[in-house]
Amino acid sequence: MSREATFIDSLRALATHPAARNLEDDCAVLELGSETLVLTHDMLVAGTHYLPGADMADVAWKLVATNLSDLAAKGAQPLGVLLGHMLGAGDERFVAGLAEVLAHYNVPLLGGDTASGTGTRSHGLTALGRATHTPVPSRGGAQVGDGVWLTGQVGAAMLGFEALRDATGADHAAYSRPTPRLVEGQALAPLASAMMDVSDGLLLDAFRMAQASQVSLAIDIASVPVADPARRMACLTWGDDYELLFTLPPGCKVGVNATRIGTVEPRGFAPLFVDGEPVTNPQGLGYTHK
Amino acid sequence: MSREATFIDSLRALATHPAARNLEDDCAVLELGSETLVLTHDMLVAGTHYLPGADMADVAWKLVATNLSDLAAKGAQPLGVLLGHMLGAGDERFVAGLAEVLAHYNVPLLGGDTASGTGTRSHGLTALGRATHTPVPSRGGAQVGDGVWLTGQVGAAMLGFEALRDATGADHAAYSRPTPRLVEGQALAPLASAMMDVSDGLLLDAFRMAQASQVSLAIDIASVPVADPARRMACLTWGDDYELLFTLPPGCKVGVNATRIGTVEPRGFAPLFVDGEPVTNPQGLGYTHK
Repeated sequence: MSREATFIDSLRALATHPAARNLEDDCAVLELGSETLVLTHDMLVAGTHYLPGADMADVAWKLVATNLSDLAAKGAQPLGVLLGHMLGAGDERFVAGLAEVLAHYNVPLLGGDTASGTGTRSHGLTALGRATHTPVPSRGGAQVGDGVWLTGQVGAAMLGFEALRDATGADHAAYSRPTPRLVEGQALAPLASAMMDVSDGLLLDAFRMAQASQVSLAIDIASVPVADPARRMACLTWGDDYELLFTLPPGCKVGVNATRIGTVEPRGFAPLFVDGEPVTNPQGLGYTHK
Repeated sequence: MSREATFIDSLRALATHPAARNLEDDCAVLELGSETLVLTHDMLVAGTHYLPGADMADVAWKLVATNLSDLAAKGAQPLGVLLGHMLGAGDERFVAGLAEVLAHYNVPLLGGDTASGTGTRSHGLTALGRATHTPVPSRGGAQVGDGVWLTGQVGAAMLGFEALRDATGADHAAYSRPTPRLVEGQALAPLASAMMDVSDGLLLDAFRMAQASQVSLAIDIASVPVADPARRMACLTWGDDYELLFTLPPGCKVGVNATRIGTVEPRGFAPLFVDGEPVTNPQGLGYTHK
């Protein structure tokens, strides 16, 4: 087991509080008085999560958007963010991007801290939201017979990344300025039996949902809207699209732009079936932490 | 103005939400339903906030304690923390120290993120609490005629730091495992007209309280309990003690271990008077960010 995996396992062993039951989902859910809070903290790291030379305004946007995406998957309304920032080149652009994304989603900056350092830069953000529906959806609620659904499409972030990497001049907003599905998440929270955001690749995240729900997910590849049909599998295994993957009871109407891409089945000998082929090992399905 | 100061000023300009009115105090205060939330995010950076070769268990303790100290100054009861952690040497010790401090203060780990990188390590923590008394005390409420008070003593962290730096074998817990004054903060919140934790040096933080309250603070140096009377000024200008500095209306009984160290006076031509001498420039009073 890698050092990071060991460390994360140790952290999980510490996170025994009922509110942390969704640690696996990257969100804590905390009941407080008449409200239910949803909290998440994600980091972006230079070289890992953004390209060298990236516009720091895009980095700020993505830092906020990825955390808001975690709230979206819980149907939560954002209340504010706190920033942990390592100072460095492009900080003026970082502040400009931060201002832009916070204004765009009408989310206040509540506080934070800055630090100086050398080497790899990292930026952390905590996002706080309030649940608009309880119980808050998790990735563990998929029921046999439900449909498997996806908002939007996958693969656009991959194309954006390639445009940036190869400096083609093509639009890269899907990669550098992703859209958290906040409106969709709030609309779906009362309906979805399970929900999560697709951050690490559709198939990998579907595998995880199946594991958490103790069911099998059968995905029909041809039905998945992809940004580049010529590279369908690449679109399904790349990450960073921040669409919502969710399951819905049969007959349930979807009020948002989403596509049915499969069915929840009783747990077979694999958590995931892709066009009928069993997938037992998540390796290669998407982005996994080293 | 330094790069960091410029960046922080830009962030402040962004933090226009009423909940962020205490950004200056390192805490956001957010009303939600019947509750008032208090949020803070502080970082510890290798080389700046801890010595090379430090026991990472102590670093984890201090990371949690410094954030809980921000909650203490608001009289808040901690609800949980989220961790942003750069992986590296001593992570097993880090987890051990984290487990210890969270158990000691009965605070749950709610979530977080980890990242790999090279160079300077940084560790961020968000702490969430609920106010036990509203309005939540701020550093801006000191009233003319109030007494100026301090819990515990100052200078012990300095001695602990020196013991570690010089490897004398003397006790260094005051530096490496500070005690957030949570119980005291909750007891004082209904009484104190102003309150803050002493993180950057007693005189500097008193200067800041005077500025925020638009009064002058007159400090009687001989009355301040110090860990090393032979180096009284050093004790008053070193930081890291995480005691509470607060002001109380005359005649108000203090239910905690605290000492009166001065008086709030009408704003004179300096925010701070130290044994009657005016101090107009905070430079040299304590630890200031570069």
